Amino acid sequence: MGRDEERGIGVRRLGVLLGVVALATSARAAPAADLKAQIQQYRATHEAAIVGQLAELVSLESVAANPAGLAATADRLQGLLRARGFEATQLSSSSGMPPVVFGTLKTAGAKRTVVFYAHYDGQPVTPSQWRSEPFTPVMRSGQPGGDVDWKTFKGHFDPEWRLFGRAASDDKASIVAFLAAFDALGSSGHLPSVNIKVVWEGEEEANSTHLQATLRQYEALCTADLWLIGDAPVHQSRHQMLYFGARGNLGVEATIYGPLRALHDGHYGNWVPNPAFLAAEFLTELRNTEGKILIPGFLDDVRALSPAERNAIAELPPVEEALKREFGIGRSETTEGLSASTMRPALNVRGIRSGQVGAERTNSIPIDAVISMDFRLVPDQTPASVRAKVESFLRAKGWTLVSEPPDLATRLASARVVQLSWEGGYRALRTDMTTPVATAVIATATRSAGHHVALLPMMGGSVPLYLIDEVFRVPVIGLPIVNHDNNQHAANENLRLQNLWDGIEMYAAMMSDLSW
Amino acid sequence: MGRDEERGIGVRRLGVLLGVVALATSARAAPAADLKAQIQQYRATHEAAIVGQLAELVSLESVAANPAGLAATADRLQGLLRARGFEATQLSSSSGMPPVVFGTLKTAGAKRTVVFYAHYDGQPVTPSQWRSEPFTPVMRSGQPGGDVDWKTFKGHFDPEWRLFGRAASDDKASIVAFLAAFDALGSSGHLPSVNIKVVWEGEEEANSTHLQATLRQYEALCTADLWLIGDAPVHQSRHQMLYFGARGNLGVEATIYGPLRALHDGHYGNWVPNPAFLAAEFLTELRNTEGKILIPGFLDDVRALSPAERNAIAELPPVEEALKREFGIGRSETTEGLSASTMRPALNVRGIRSGQVGAERTNSIPIDAVISMDFRLVPDQTPASVRAKVESFLRAKGWTLVSEPPDLATRLASARVVQLSWEGGYRALRTDMTTPVATAVIATATRSAGHHVALLPMMGGSVPLYLIDEVFRVPVIGLPIVNHDNNQHAANENLRLQNLWDGIEMYAAMMSDLSW
Repeated sequence: MGRDEERGIGVRRLGVLLGVVALATSARAAPAADLKAQIQQYRATHEAAIVGQLAELVSLESVAANPAGLAATADRLQGLLRARGFEATQLSSSSGMPPVVFGTLKTAGAKRTVVFYAHYDGQPVTPSQWRSEPFTPVMRSGQPGGDVDWKTFKGHFDPEWRLFGRAASDDKASIVAFLAAFDALGSSGHLPSVNIKVVWEGEEEANSTHLQATLRQYEALCTADLWLIGDAPVHQSRHQMLYFGARGNLGVEATIYGPLRALHDGHYGNWVPNPAFLAAEFLTELRNTEGKILIPGFLDDVRALSPAERNAIAELPPVEEALKREFGIGRSETTEGLSASTMRPALNVRGIRSGQVGAERTNSIPIDAVISMDFRLVPDQTPASVRAKVESFLRAKGWTLVSEPPDLATRLASARVVQLSWEGGYRALRTDMTTPVATAVIATATRSAGHHVALLPMMGGSVPLYLIDEVFRVPVIGLPIVNHDNNQHAANENLRLQNLWDGIEMYAAMMSDLSW
Repeated sequence: MGRDEERGIGVRRLGVLLGVVALATSARAAPAADLKAQIQQYRATHEAAIVGQLAELVSLESVAANPAGLAATADRLQGLLRARGFEATQLSSSSGMPPVVFGTLKTAGAKRTVVFYAHYDGQPVTPSQWRSEPFTPVMRSGQPGGDVDWKTFKGHFDPEWRLFGRAASDDKASIVAFLAAFDALGSSGHLPSVNIKVVWEGEEEANSTHLQATLRQYEALCTADLWLIGDAPVHQSRHQMLYFGARGNLGVEATIYGPLRALHDGHYGNWVPNPAFLAAEFLTELRNTEGKILIPGFLDDVRALSPAERNAIAELPPVEEALKREFGIGRSETTEGLSASTMRPALNVRGIRSGQVGAERTNSIPIDAVISMDFRLVPDQTPASVRAKVESFLRAKGWTLVSEPPDLATRLASARVVQLSWEGGYRALRTDMTTPVATAVIATATRSAGHHVALLPMMGGSVPLYLIDEVFRVPVIGLPIVNHDNNQHAANENLRLQNLWDGIEMYAAMMSDLSW
């Protein structure tokens, strides 16, 4: 057993002590400046233990392809909550689903209950694209050749260091920030101002398929006055941020059929339709250069932004020119700002495969072309309405739609055949930014940050806020902490340490300084 | 040493005997009907040996990725020619190139010399796409489960059987048909009517890069009155065929650049340009649904068809409805017939790769999109003129063209960046169908087939006819033998035995019955 494991045990023991204290004492608030300083002090003396906790969680391979890794992670999280005095259980509404890790801790005298949501599953990995193994966390300094042996490092960690690994930022950083904030509060004598509940989901990256059924089954257990969603990155300006909604999503894979066998493109090119080219037509029929979806009536269900929402977007720090440099792009798709553009629905291409390129190319007409796409939805679109509009539009454009590979008769009867394989999807949500609870959350975040925080009416990315809204009808507000440049959903996902440090302070404030 | 190897030796010994006889005796012609019957008789008693010869050549892995396989094949072919009395050598104009196998055999009293061209290299393979190993020939009956153990089979082979393997039909069948025809002529006492030369190339599938330099270096050795090109498939109606030209080609790989790293498509979709979608735009800017290339002036260099050429196309047996059924396609790109459509230039997409599809998909904007394409050229287009028109058009459409991955400054200064990697290409050729030699070849082919043969002014596929034309300025006529449905350039390439049998008769006729 190494030094880090010992540290981990130390933290857990502290948590147990705190849990006992918290249950026995009534809530009180501390001045925000004191709180911030004390949390910082705690963090500064526990950096290696906090990073060690994150590294341990990353090393548990909690991805959909690895059910055992998901189960092990759920068990570990349940243990971490129990060690801190939480009543902790695993909730399932369906056999085989990755369980929801649920925890609850009452605060004597508290009149409000807040759920802290996060997810412990990560996106799939393509290891060949990673610089190091996705589930073996590596700290890098950002300097050339800069792997950092943080386990033996003496002194404070450079806050610009980043820990690389799948789910390090999406979304295990939020879980670790919650745990460290809770420990820091206990260590410095602060008590929660609210009753705390924890909902840590295990299939967010698989469209949260069972989350709503689970919440309905355990509705009484999970009831609360506010849900804080610990997921997604902060603003690209690195300002801390709150978000009040998220776009929905709907994935679909389109397989466009060409000839039954690959054909010599000299003998048959110009006469046999080429599915790779049909794929290009398919995409340009659906979407134009500015990202506008060309389906008539596609925007019929779109709810306009409120004045508060429009204001919030206008007040976001400008990031566009810096992002263009960071991403190496010479233009954006529209002249709108980034956040304004993500208030609209989107159609994204995740990948295309047809025939062969590079050294494996042959002068052949491919047999098919596969396009993986996802729609991003805004209120009040629904997956069903989007699917219906897409299918109706494609039929009108002359596509024959099938749901499995077409038989010969279907091929012969059709000018263009596409198989659509729809994924489960979900709708968007925008929470009112002007309610008393929203105002209180904004005020607490501002006190913690020490300055204005970025307020985003709706994230571009998707988290299943609507599932919660439908069951509980209470405000759902996003509390992101991780860096925007974290490669989430791609290779070399990483977490910048300063974001974790700031996140711990923000979580501590939401647990002990929030009231309305 | 197995039974087949013994058969092979038997055939070679016969060839040696024939070679000696041929060199010692003057030419004489036999009536076409007698010739045909005698060649058929020879073939019927040597089916296993002939197929064995083809199987042996297929098993030599003569593809560009395997220089040793190319060299072994050249050595073997040289040996096969020498065993038949040919003076045979290997010609090279550049170190490291796959050699041209050259053979010559004089016919006493003959006033004409004919070169029989073929190529011994095959297309690259993607073994995972093949039903069996590409270089382990397998005979199949076309019936379910129908692998045939032809080596131990007693009796005549079913002419609908097919031998599967890379280069079985493209183009080793032509080589085997030549050898078997030569052996059959000798066995039945027929003598050549012309001096015979053989040019068997080893880099046709790699654009015949060194062929012209080699022909120039050995111009005196290779001089002739006619070149017969044993490559490409016969007409889709299964009629035997001659062709009088071939389209040229020009390959290019386009890499379209997106962001420097993959980005979450929820947070950045609609704002960061998606290279997979840019690839779709790129293709639809270049080409429309009917296969028309949209580059202004692209057809400026296109020479109109002559009346004889238009007539020949009009007289081709109709195949379009049968091919649609065979290929499982509901429409053709144009309402022209197949052969009329391949008289025009073409732009084909060989493959596209961007991001990920299927289970490996992530909700990301990919970093790039790669499109592999080839142009098919017609007289009097040249690769240089096509390349210039494409590049000029793309620049006018707002693409920044680079020849290697762009640096950051280039990315930031460009709305759309594409890297073009051009392959070597070559121009098309059409030989006059009305000259005396063309007339004689048509007459000989007609006598051999016993009925009219299909006459194609220009093949859709590319063979380097122009290289020969430029050096020798003599007629170049295509003598294809293999089935059209042979999967050449794709997985599961195959040769239908009846085509090989017919091809042997056609080769025998061209060697012993041709005069002008």
